[in-house]
Amino acid sequence: MPAVAVTRGRLTGLHEIVDVGRDRSRGGYSRHVWQPAELELRAWFLERAQRLGLKVEHDRNGNLWAWWGEPAPHAVVLGSHLDSVPGGGEFDGPLGVVSALDAIGLLQSTGFTPSRPCAVVVFAEEEGSRFGVACLGSRLMTGAIDPARAGALTDADDVRFADAAQANGLTARHLGRDDVALGRIGLFLELHVEQGRGLIDLDVPLAVASSILAHGRWRIDIAGEGNHAGATRMQGRRDPMVAAARAIVAVRDAAAARGDDRATVGRIHAVPGGTNVIPSTVTTWLDARSEHDDATRDLVAEITARVSAEAAGEGCSVSVVEESWSGAVRLDPALRDGLAARLGGIPVLPTGAGHDAGVLAAHVPTAMLFVRNPSGVSHSPEEHATLDDTVAGVIALERVLRGLL
Amino acid sequence: MPAVAVTRGRLTGLHEIVDVGRDRSRGGYSRHVWQPAELELRAWFLERAQRLGLKVEHDRNGNLWAWWGEPAPHAVVLGSHLDSVPGGGEFDGPLGVVSALDAIGLLQSTGFTPSRPCAVVVFAEEEGSRFGVACLGSRLMTGAIDPARAGALTDADDVRFADAAQANGLTARHLGRDDVALGRIGLFLELHVEQGRGLIDLDVPLAVASSILAHGRWRIDIAGEGNHAGATRMQGRRDPMVAAARAIVAVRDAAAARGDDRATVGRIHAVPGGTNVIPSTVTTWLDARSEHDDATRDLVAEITARVSAEAAGEGCSVSVVEESWSGAVRLDPALRDGLAARLGGIPVLPTGAGHDAGVLAAHVPTAMLFVRNPSGVSHSPEEHATLDDTVAGVIALERVLRGLL
Repeated sequence: MPAVAVTRGRLTGLHEIVDVGRDRSRGGYSRHVWQPAELELRAWFLERAQRLGLKVEHDRNGNLWAWWGEPAPHAVVLGSHLDSVPGGGEFDGPLGVVSALDAIGLLQSTGFTPSRPCAVVVFAEEEGSRFGVACLGSRLMTGAIDPARAGALTDADDVRFADAAQANGLTARHLGRDDVALGRIGLFLELHVEQGRGLIDLDVPLAVASSILAHGRWRIDIAGEGNHAGATRMQGRRDPMVAAARAIVAVRDAAAARGDDRATVGRIHAVPGGTNVIPSTVTTWLDARSEHDDATRDLVAEITARVSAEAAGEGCSVSVVEESWSGAVRLDPALRDGLAARLGGIPVLPTGAGHDAGVLAAHVPTAMLFVRNPSGVSHSPEEHATLDDTVAGVIALERVLRGLL
Repeated sequence: MPAVAVTRGRLTGLHEIVDVGRDRSRGGYSRHVWQPAELELRAWFLERAQRLGLKVEHDRNGNLWAWWGEPAPHAVVLGSHLDSVPGGGEFDGPLGVVSALDAIGLLQSTGFTPSRPCAVVVFAEEEGSRFGVACLGSRLMTGAIDPARAGALTDADDVRFADAAQANGLTARHLGRDDVALGRIGLFLELHVEQGRGLIDLDVPLAVASSILAHGRWRIDIAGEGNHAGATRMQGRRDPMVAAARAIVAVRDAAAARGDDRATVGRIHAVPGGTNVIPSTVTTWLDARSEHDDATRDLVAEITARVSAEAAGEGCSVSVVEESWSGAVRLDPALRDGLAARLGGIPVLPTGAGHDAGVLAAHVPTAMLFVRNPSGVSHSPEEHATLDDTVAGVIALERVLRGLL
């Protein structure tokens, strides 16, 4: 299989960026949109695309496009994102970008000439790690988020998204639905490291995606009475940290009682946050997911009721605000079946993780390929993919492109 | 009562610093050692002491001393601290410093000449808000903390205490027990806003302290398995946030079952801290207090056992590290009774809050006066003291000094 040898030699993209954005305190990588590590990755993408003779453009919403051939409608678009969660893994995002570039390089090395335009896209702020809304670049492009709302989002330093966009060469008033960029996409294919154990259990390197769970983020503010930790008796306290603790257990219990639903609190913030202070407020962020939209709404309603009851038991009040929402996505069945067949009958798997592919699926035929993750772990430094499996992913993309272009 | 009129006119100290270090996001004040707000308060203290003709020195551990008369042994020392918890109140610390200066001003205005040296001290990092160990300035001066350990403490930006000390004019290798400074203290008297409801219930403005609860801080690290919030089923998770939540409830329940013991988690940190990420570790900080040393140790042992069991139930591991310890303090009985009598038979109250007075009590005769706090709340923007009660505190200090000097 000579293609493997060629690919191994060319599969250098991940190695080139292996030291960009390492997080010394959390482990793994922290690469947040328009911060130094992610800017370095953008510069790398530009340079690597140019090495392949691709022409790089940025659109009105901070997404990068590398074109093989002139930009035009009905293009085959591959891609993913370069940003990460705080302390994330090496593969979530960059694997899809690097594999797409590698697949084009592999095609070029065989003298292949495309008869249809092709592009590799890098979507901005897929993880929502800096401004709190996931898939922000693809949501803006497709009009799935109001640009005024997006522009007003702030990061941990109170920098507004609109100001960060301006500082990075965009025009704040041009943020929002981009029919030109969207109109060029004939189909979208995102390769991604698997974020679960499906391929471990099946003992194969690749799968095609069937669907994405409905999911969203909710901010839960719990207010009590701040006071001195030493001078305040236990009786009569209205401690929002205890209320938040009871809420977190209720979140888990509500999801665990519902089959395959998922609900997580991964982020928490106490105010004022001193060791010797009963907090006045504690904010937690809820990530909730289920197979269907209604089931997810129902899960969040149950969680809201349980959290409110737990907080009331501690004399605290609660407010729950939806920060983002992504309905369940069934990826294009014809494209899915065609890919699975072309790739030798690889399995079809659902995913609980959100992706730009899920945002685009409402607008253009969209598919995803998953590469086995032997750790079964993602959004963590332990996330992994072997070289053999990443090579299998590149060869799969090359085979798919050869049929589509 | 002409003294009141004089005092009201002079009681300007708190007004002079009312805008220094306001915390716009938390409310109240954030004044942390050697950060801009606290440095501004130090400059204000220097200027205000000079207006009274006092000579200001700093010692080897970052504490400030304003001397009325030449520094010498057997001095009467008043004082407190200027730093705050994050989002703390206006009075905790500054009231004791300002009242001491005001009492000296009041004595001077009557032509009083002291026959014994007197000083006002500002202790550094009383709250431990920046470097994590409370009463750090007085602990270093008295040798209650190993200076190498203190020097290695780090703040949230990983700045070492030793480096911060050097940057603020100290010499890192000179940190530690200071027999010269300690040897000058004939007795120490700290006036402080009450951090509880004792004086509200008694309906009087002032009390003298009897004792300080034993207390300490413990860091509790809970380790689980970081993973993707959406792609990871609820079954089989090892989520340290859920373990921490169960631990926080256990902390409260353990203390509440023990009469007047207190245990609080006011600070929590999840790694990596992303909304769509099951954390890999969650750290909480425990503040635990009880009347006697043994009872406090016993409370913490019970909490450690319960937290470990709760975490094990979530497949997580736990480590508990003591960050600070302050044994129970019984303040000097003769001094206490003398003060209460001189001040017209004011009541005697215990306190659950730690103070520099508690550190000094092991070395010199030490007393505390409390000023009524009508909110009953401290370490919070709601902390309060009326002008009438603060004036009563200044007059009490003036009367005490008149007897001692």
